[in-house]
Amino acid sequence: METLKDKIRNIENFPKQGIVFKDITTLLEDGECFQKAVDMLSYRYINQKIDKIVGIEARGFVIGAALAYKLCKGVVLVRKKGKLPHKTIQTSYELEYGNDILEVHIDAIKPNERVLIVDDLLATGGTVKAVVNLVEKLNGDLVECCFLCELNFLKGREKLDGYNVFSLLKF
Amino acid sequence: METLKDKIRNIENFPKQGIVFKDITTLLEDGECFQKAVDMLSYRYINQKIDKIVGIEARGFVIGAALAYKLCKGVVLVRKKGKLPHKTIQTSYELEYGNDILEVHIDAIKPNERVLIVDDLLATGGTVKAVVNLVEKLNGDLVECCFLCELNFLKGREKLDGYNVFSLLKF
Repeated sequence: METLKDKIRNIENFPKQGIVFKDITTLLEDGECFQKAVDMLSYRYINQKIDKIVGIEARGFVIGAALAYKLCKGVVLVRKKGKLPHKTIQTSYELEYGNDILEVHIDAIKPNERVLIVDDLLATGGTVKAVVNLVEKLNGDLVECCFLCELNFLKGREKLDGYNVFSLLKF
Repeated sequence: METLKDKIRNIENFPKQGIVFKDITTLLEDGECFQKAVDMLSYRYINQKIDKIVGIEARGFVIGAALAYKLCKGVVLVRKKGKLPHKTIQTSYELEYGNDILEVHIDAIKPNERVLIVDDLLATGGTVKAVVNLVEKLNGDLVECCFLCELNFLKGREKLDGYNVFSLLKF
């Protein structure tokens, strides 16, 4: 696991002063590491009943789509407001200043479908909590929230109390 | 192939009046169809020398990442301005009104690496032409531009004259 962790680059002062950003692009750019990370996630879910994998725009699409391909599951796109062409439901989530809106097509998840939410990083958990709301609004059955990385010190798990949470790499 | 084509939904008047938008989310949400589409793309490249697969934000990440996973290649993210944390190079491309900017990390492609560009849709070709510019600025060796769908009547291929272009589904 250290080799995968070592592939993630620290970028200081991004997106603003004082933040150390975990840059996963260096892991993604290494074909064997990317495949290994997705394979390791897949082993966890291969014997679970899952109908849909939800990817969160935009880096969640990278991990979510590769995992969905491997597991032969449908991939559902959760996108920023105004990007999806069909009828959507929305949820808002808090940013540091103000709010942003995420959307999903109303017919992307059918009632009682078993749903795995995938994103690259669990930080404060605000975004993924909003996506949990979308899944529940569509009466999906949430299997787990799955992340490539987790920043333990930001305590995103506490915001997801009562839901299953898994992350491959913890910092 | 008709079964894959039939999975793509037409949305009238999106993003604006008079446009019929090809909505691929209905294909992506069907696990077997998504896997089949990526597999069919992979057969074309499995015996070609490719070092990096470039995905264009955001739907290009879905197809590009799954294909990169299958072929065990690194995936490079081309993103909208301001999203990538490390040093980037930029290119601008024309929208209907004004310009937009795409970026890639300066170290994402090394000189002479063989690069496959992947996006969901070839329309007018403006976006992918900008990404070709980024690959060439980094001295990558462009293998092909690869799309899930192509809208023939918009003649994007003409804008990519001199480059290899492949699309799985043509409309």
